[in-house]
Amino acid sequence: MVSLKWSGKGIQFIAQDEQGHEVIVDTVKELGGLDQGFAPMNLLLVSLAGCMAMDIMSIVRKKGAQLSSLVVKIEGEKNPTHPKRFIKIRYEIRAGGDYRREDLLRAFELSRDKYCSVLATIGNPPEFEYSI
Amino acid sequence: MVSLKWSGKGIQFIAQDEQGHEVIVDTVKELGGLDQGFAPMNLLLVSLAGCMAMDIMSIVRKKGAQLSSLVVKIEGEKNPTHPKRFIKIRYEIRAGGDYRREDLLRAFELSRDKYCSVLATIGNPPEFEYSI
Repeated sequence: MVSLKWSGKGIQFIAQDEQGHEVIVDTVKELGGLDQGFAPMNLLLVSLAGCMAMDIMSIVRKKGAQLSSLVVKIEGEKNPTHPKRFIKIRYEIRAGGDYRREDLLRAFELSRDKYCSVLATIGNPPEFEYSI
Repeated sequence: MVSLKWSGKGIQFIAQDEQGHEVIVDTVKELGGLDQGFAPMNLLLVSLAGCMAMDIMSIVRKKGAQLSSLVVKIEGEKNPTHPKRFIKIRYEIRAGGDYRREDLLRAFELSRDKYCSVLATIGNPPEFEYSI
């Protein structure tokens, strides 16, 4: 469970998970934010890239790799009219250290096709229940 | 554009947006994390709740509401087997202050049906392009 509370400023919210970690959700000043934290659409990209990066790191380690770095760059292209959903997402994965390229590729494919729960939620939408 | 870099510890990553905001992406120790930040699936919930909360706050203000609080609680039910995608997401929206209930409901509906770009991305999947 995650809860978000309005911070009292602009349209900025503070999100908290059950362990007490906090994230500021905000947007640029032109849209009424204070530009002090990640925008929701960027958090969607973080969520997806984080999920795949963690999968890849876990899987290549099991194959004996010793990574010294793992970087994921991700960007989305938005629909020009409402809803401004992502119509394309591009990402780039770069690893450094001692590993076999085939193991990295296999780890990526396993994440994409089997393990990444964020990717599997996008495109196979859950049921939604709300109370307001 | 968002970039994620392995922090050098466990399977923890540091995400950075173009404005330089940072978020720690992590997971519980049982899964190889350090439990120092939000897990990817929770960030997906933050992204969705943040998007809707910002829409609602912006829209009800335009209708003259003076909210003193806005809280969104959101939780997901995961598929028991891989991929452990969300099969159900429940959220609860509570507002305090001086507003008309019909305006709050209308703002929620506009977010859900027209504006929320995160919700519209879930279920209408973008194209993906990758380089590894």
